[in-house]
Amino acid sequence: MNMSFLQELFNSITQRDALLRRRSGESTTPDHGQLVAACQALLESDGEASSIALASRALGMYQRLEPAERQRFFERLASDFAAEPGEIDAAYAHYAERRDNASLEALFEACEPRRQELIRRLNLPSGGTAELVRMREDLLALLRDHPELDAIDADFAHLFGSWFNRGFLVLKRIDWNTPASILEKIIRYEAVHEIQDWDDLRRRLDARDRRCFGFFHPAIGDEPLIFVEVALCKGLPNRIQPILSGEGAGGESGVEEPDEADSAAFFGISNCQTGLRGISFGNFLIKQVVQELKQELPQLRHFVTLSPVPGFRQWLEERRGDEALPEALRETLGELDATEWHRDAERAARLEAVVRPLAARYLAEEKNARGLPQNAVARFHLGNGAELHRVNWLGDTSAKGLKQAAGLMVNYLYVLEEIERNHENYSANATVACSSEVRDLARKARKLAKGEHSK
Amino acid sequence: MNMSFLQELFNSITQRDALLRRRSGESTTPDHGQLVAACQALLESDGEASSIALASRALGMYQRLEPAERQRFFERLASDFAAEPGEIDAAYAHYAERRDNASLEALFEACEPRRQELIRRLNLPSGGTAELVRMREDLLALLRDHPELDAIDADFAHLFGSWFNRGFLVLKRIDWNTPASILEKIIRYEAVHEIQDWDDLRRRLDARDRRCFGFFHPAIGDEPLIFVEVALCKGLPNRIQPILSGEGAGGESGVEEPDEADSAAFFGISNCQTGLRGISFGNFLIKQVVQELKQELPQLRHFVTLSPVPGFRQWLEERRGDEALPEALRETLGELDATEWHRDAERAARLEAVVRPLAARYLAEEKNARGLPQNAVARFHLGNGAELHRVNWLGDTSAKGLKQAAGLMVNYLYVLEEIERNHENYSANATVACSSEVRDLARKARKLAKGEHSK
Amino acid sequence: MNMSFLQELFNSITQRDALLRRRSGESTTPDHGQLVAACQALLESDGEASSIALASRALGMYQRLEPAERQRFFERLASDFAAEPGEIDAAYAHYAERRDNASLEALFEACEPRRQELIRRLNLPSGGTAELVRMREDLLALLRDHPELDAIDADFAHLFGSWFNRGFLVLKRIDWNTPASILEKIIRYEAVHEIQDWDDLRRRLDARDRRCFGFFHPAIGDEPLIFVEVALCKGLPNRIQPILSGEGAGGESGVEEPDEADSAAFFGISNCQTGLRGISFGNFLIKQVVQELKQELPQLRHFVTLSPVPGFRQWLEERRGDEALPEALRETLGELDATEWHRDAERAARLEAVVRPLAARYLAEEKNARGLPQNAVARFHLGNGAELHRVNWLGDTSAKGLKQAAGLMVNYLYVLEEIERNHENYSANATVACSSEVRDLARKARKLAKGEHSK
Amino acid sequence: MNMSFLQELFNSITQRDALLRRRSGESTTPDHGQLVAACQALLESDGEASSIALASRALGMYQRLEPAERQRFFERLASDFAAEPGEIDAAYAHYAERRDNASLEALFEACEPRRQELIRRLNLPSGGTAELVRMREDLLALLRDHPELDAIDADFAHLFGSWFNRGFLVLKRIDWNTPASILEKIIRYEAVHEIQDWDDLRRRLDARDRRCFGFFHPAIGDEPLIFVEVALCKGLPNRIQPILSGEGAGGESGVEEPDEADSAAFFGISNCQTGLRGISFGNFLIKQVVQELKQELPQLRHFVTLSPVPGFRQWLEERRGDEALPEALRETLGELDATEWHRDAERAARLEAVVRPLAARYLAEEKNARGLPQNAVARFHLGNGAELHRVNWLGDTSAKGLKQAAGLMVNYLYVLEEIERNHENYSANATVACSSEVRDLARKARKLAKGEHSK
Repeated sequence: MNMSFLQELFNSITQRDALLRRRSGESTTPDHGQLVAACQALLESDGEASSIALASRALGMYQRLEPAERQRFFERLASDFAAEPGEIDAAYAHYAERRDNASLEALFEACEPRRQELIRRLNLPSGGTAELVRMREDLLALLRDHPELDAIDADFAHLFGSWFNRGFLVLKRIDWNTPASILEKIIRYEAVHEIQDWDDLRRRLDARDRRCFGFFHPAIGDEPLIFVEVALCKGLPNRIQPILSGEGAGGESGVEEPDEADSAAFFGISNCQTGLRGISFGNFLIKQVVQELKQELPQLRHFVTLSPVPGFRQWLEERRGDEALPEALRETLGELDATEWHRDAERAARLEAVVRPLAARYLAEEKNARGLPQNAVARFHLGNGAELHRVNWLGDTSAKGLKQAAGLMVNYLYVLEEIERNHENYSANATVACSSEVRDLARKARKLAKGEHSK
Repeated sequence: MNMSFLQELFNSITQRDALLRRRSGESTTPDHGQLVAACQALLESDGEASSIALASRALGMYQRLEPAERQRFFERLASDFAAEPGEIDAAYAHYAERRDNASLEALFEACEPRRQELIRRLNLPSGGTAELVRMREDLLALLRDHPELDAIDADFAHLFGSWFNRGFLVLKRIDWNTPASILEKIIRYEAVHEIQDWDDLRRRLDARDRRCFGFFHPAIGDEPLIFVEVALCKGLPNRIQPILSGEGAGGESGVEEPDEADSAAFFGISNCQTGLRGISFGNFLIKQVVQELKQELPQLRHFVTLSPVPGFRQWLEERRGDEALPEALRETLGELDATEWHRDAERAARLEAVVRPLAARYLAEEKNARGLPQNAVARFHLGNGAELHRVNWLGDTSAKGLKQAAGLMVNYLYVLEEIERNHENYSANATVACSSEVRDLARKARKLAKGEHSK
Repeated sequence: MNMSFLQELFNSITQRDALLRRRSGESTTPDHGQLVAACQALLESDGEASSIALASRALGMYQRLEPAERQRFFERLASDFAAEPGEIDAAYAHYAERRDNASLEALFEACEPRRQELIRRLNLPSGGTAELVRMREDLLALLRDHPELDAIDADFAHLFGSWFNRGFLVLKRIDWNTPASILEKIIRYEAVHEIQDWDDLRRRLDARDRRCFGFFHPAIGDEPLIFVEVALCKGLPNRIQPILSGEGAGGESGVEEPDEADSAAFFGISNCQTGLRGISFGNFLIKQVVQELKQELPQLRHFVTLSPVPGFRQWLEERRGDEALPEALRETLGELDATEWHRDAERAARLEAVVRPLAARYLAEEKNARGLPQNAVARFHLGNGAELHRVNWLGDTSAKGLKQAAGLMVNYLYVLEEIERNHENYSANATVACSSEVRDLARKARKLAKGEHSK
Repeated sequence: MNMSFLQELFNSITQRDALLRRRSGESTTPDHGQLVAACQALLESDGEASSIALASRALGMYQRLEPAERQRFFERLASDFAAEPGEIDAAYAHYAERRDNASLEALFEACEPRRQELIRRLNLPSGGTAELVRMREDLLALLRDHPELDAIDADFAHLFGSWFNRGFLVLKRIDWNTPASILEKIIRYEAVHEIQDWDDLRRRLDARDRRCFGFFHPAIGDEPLIFVEVALCKGLPNRIQPILSGEGAGGESGVEEPDEADSAAFFGISNCQTGLRGISFGNFLIKQVVQELKQELPQLRHFVTLSPVPGFRQWLEERRGDEALPEALRETLGELDATEWHRDAERAARLEAVVRPLAARYLAEEKNARGLPQNAVARFHLGNGAELHRVNWLGDTSAKGLKQAAGLMVNYLYVLEEIERNHENYSANATVACSSEVRDLARKARKLAKGEHSK
């Protein structure tokens, strides 16, 4: 496949079309009724000649719609573009009688909401895909208060799952040679450890020990879907601050040259497109990046994350109120309220003795309603086949890190030979793969809970 | 959108994955049962971690399957991966009771054949899309004799319609700077006027008065989906041989420099992927190419085809047997049996007097069961909104041209301001847009049929 | 020419080689003697097999040389790598006797300093060109105090003139899709109106009414040699602040869409490589950019600069001390000392009445020793064939603008049909092409100087 | 360095300029006098504003010049654009008096033929470099009969040596994804083993065991300067026919997959630009390709050529006439006259016994006037530091191979650790590095010459 061959057109076409829509002038603001009519015209067109123009017009109208009108438009989508109960009943009756392929196909078609065909047709103009993703973003914002719109979202999710199939995604390294228009999106989308500005970005990306990769989709061009930041290091890193400040992956584990590294640390994975919520890329990304890194640097031995523990501090708060726990333990936890507690070595030592074990217990044993780990980051990596490897005390001493996780960070380790087995055990039995160190910590937590002293 | 940014990865990834599959060794030839099992494993996987590997394995197995085993595999797809009648019945009962969105969604899902999810998952590995297109090519070859496989084809068509949505396609100019790997496909796929070899290709492509454009899909990289060949000329061309020989678009209409041209003649449109049969690109291609050409050469006035008339000669043969027609007319038609009749000026003149009118009648008035023009090429261009503009006597004097169309070629004219109206009239009432010249010819044909002499 | 074909290698090769040099380890700091020896070895090598390695080693050594040692190295270049007087004398004697081509060639070779061949050989490794440019940058810094190094600089200038021949340069548009690594150089190199940061850069580049173009040389890749910033506008812009702030090209002259513009204003031309001083690109750049813009936007009518007038304020100061001038005039000029004088409307009006005429006189009539305009910016544009078109009062009210030019800015107009004639008149007779408005102003200045009142 | 960034412009600019020249119309054929005048105007221009246009006009004139007029133009270049003897004498006198840098520079400039500045200025327009290379090609064709033009050639060679410095060259892999416009040049330029057509090219290039690399120069875009064809194999190949037929690198040494290979065989190195004769790239190419291959396939152990022995058969013919040689030996050599001698096993065996030793002697010991090997291919590889490794009997049984080398081919082996030493010994003492096998053969040849029987 020779993509240099394809590249220029991508560029010109999408930009030109989007531009035409933007400038299609009509400075008047349409109402939802006009857009509904435009959608109906699009659905009634024969899907050929004039459909692109009709779709382009409808997308342009949507862009110019006021928020309140957008909501009304979605309501009309829910009511007027659903499947027809009458047709469904008839198709089912026919199917029930015939039980053959043709009648089944007809039933399937009768059940498909007309919205799906509408969305497919709105995708005809170049640039349409990106606009549909933004449309779903608007929709998602409404869902909580408008459960009646769930059905529309199901249609979007169904089609996006097909369109953003991993086979259509492109992995791309992001570095200082990447166009500024993409880098500014990295700044905007970084969700784990905020990027302040261009200098901050450069510190994170443009060093010999850094790598960043993202998934892109050809039809929405320069918008990353998800990206991951990587630091090369010697041994597993335990603190995020040196990594973010560009000092290298922290103290003893930093490297000057990539070929000195034996480990690759994934320290930030950010989803970029709200409108693609629920379409999963992260697991594919991590695995493909591992492949890329092994290809470039065959000497790498360890692939590990340095991950946040959102929600842990809140869980600790709840423990303080749990009268079943020993008074002394709860008192120690209270020291987390002290200002700058982490700078007081004695206090920090007292806390470490109880907080690390509790974190191990929280991550490995605290489950949600579905019997899976309560912590979302843990669910993600354990579901991917990683191992809960190490709990790092004072791993993130930023205000955010102290607030959400009492300063803890966690290493999840991807042992290539174990991924498959871990994943299966997790899928089948919700088994959490743990290092022996974490297991020991969790055991210690149980003793603490009983008031036993541990050594 | 900056695609130079995306390009390299496209390349490496797809090739690497396809290579891995090809070399995945297992020199043993699997049977269809093993592949069915692999597909079941893929469907049962949770769609995440290991799915890519499972899909890759299944695609590799399919590649190594013997033809007979492939047929058996399709039979199993039809029987074992359909929707479950029991589930459908239950879901319908539930829906009939509730009549709400949730139960409708559940019914829709129950009706969706499991094959669709299977195909989506087979698309996970890079390069999967191309292999699925080839899989459908195998399937289509079986359909005629195995109507029971129709349902599988419906699933492929459903998904391909979504994946090869025009919004995902990329238009690309093809010329002598195009990679050889793509040009050799142009040689192979040219369906209208065969390309003998590289020299022939060069004559057609690499002149200042030629253009060639194709649609490509990012996920199947360097495989064109469809392409069109264009000759720039002064006035409308009436003969294909000067164009094919590279002399310029024929006698008086040829130009040396693009900016001398006032017309662009589309003289060959070829679909490349059998496995995408029924997924329509042609109309979009023509319209986008017209846009590109107008952008490059604003002075162009006419966009016209020089099209073959397949089936016309056969239709004429049938007329010869039609006793309702005047004896003299039928006798004249018999002269088409003479060897090299077109080189005998008198005979050719006699034939022209009857064959051109009959061609006009054939194209404009001979309808198929659906009330549309019998001739497929006419249906395509008229459906796109073109006008049946001119019937060119001795337009194609190649053996093939004489055999299929008594040497006739036709100009379909795309008048930009009329396209929409023509298309609508055609869609609504099957009205054929004709030039007055063609209308006159058709009238003459009616007189000929009644034995009247026309002037 | 298909450069997508060439691109990747460029990238990898230069980076790899430069890297090898950088890492060639030898953490020891060499002295100039070692480098001289390395250069001699390089010159004695037969220019083939091992020369690349020798050159690479010498470049690496130079990089690690301390500043003082660099100076000593240059001194050795001047003394030890010159042409050999003995050889020159012998060659001349031979030539004087023979007067044939062969003896002349031999004389030419004998006169060529050995440094030239040395520099050519240092250019063998990929990335060498960029390092030689930096080497000359070091040299230029020494020249003022070390005129004995002039001869070395002549050799660099001779070769760079050949290597950076306009035929080897590539014009490239720079915009928000340009890699960050290049954009940060634009920030760094902007010499006319400082760019504060990335946000500032974006305001200047990334709007529909902005263009930026630079010349690049393939062998020094992502380093711009020179670039020019352009604002599209209606009519000629007279103030720089609205342009810099991204408001559009100032009040009435700003445009929203490129196709509304009738003028293109060049508001900043910056040379980037100190090491290429004296190798002229600017005139070629402006002319090629005019071509590019006319191609993109055929409706553009005016190509004009909005240029600073460095040195004007100082020249005014000198006028204040010139007792031959009327007292009243000199008093008025004294008002420029008032703080924020430009915000005091009456005072500004008094000043405008004298400063604009004086500026016209300064630009059009004040000459340097060679009989050319004293103002360097004027020399550049007039030498390119532009016309001194308009003097803009309060065109640049930044601190720098007030300080260097009393707030004035100038429009030089490139009238395509006049460029050649203007240029010839200027070259032959130092004639300054002026608009009638400027001519009137200059006349008024003469009257002011005589104490006459002008209307 | 980010070249994707630079690529598009390369394309458009050079093509546009060349086109403008081609179309600059003036259908009239100029004479050499007009071109001389144009060149003088160019030299007298100030090298700035209008120079590009003047240079473009002169290049266009040259293109339209008849051959005889071109010769006359070169004669005028030799006579009218040389250095000025009067100026030289004056400059020398001044230098002899002053002996300072300034006067030396002035002398150097006085000695430089005005042609050099002319050629530099002709290089101003984009595309000029390629046209200058073609101009020198014309010149070289005249040199043999017109030694008075030598001086012009020296100027071209001087400048081309600087412009085509290895640091400006780009190595590029050539394969089936390469644009057809470049591949057709590979077909045309292949000098060692003719490529019949596109199918033949594909057999040579587009297999998993083949590689092809070329050097390109950015300013002459898609014209390769030199390229080398490589076959991957197991062990050293001894016959060219299996390689050319695409069977793999011959019998036992062929491989299916690149990673099975332990050797890379260079079986064709072709210079492409006659106009660059004497500017050496070949040694740089081989060394860089070795680096590329080692990077891609670290397991490769041997880098070897399979080279022709042009001139050997003629040398053998001369031996037949050498009465100092034993009659029996000369008689055996006579058997080479027999038709299809190589298909007669007994005869071939008799010949092998004497021809292989003689070949070893010819290659290792037969010297030219400068004391270097008589055989040009041997000179090239030995000069690069290779070892004369093996003489392959019936290595090339094509008509050409039999005719020029009695069917012999030779392996020159590049042992990376020995290259430098071999090269130095060769440069310093013309020592030919030989394998012991070749040395034994040469010894045997000496015995044969004395009529001794060897075992």
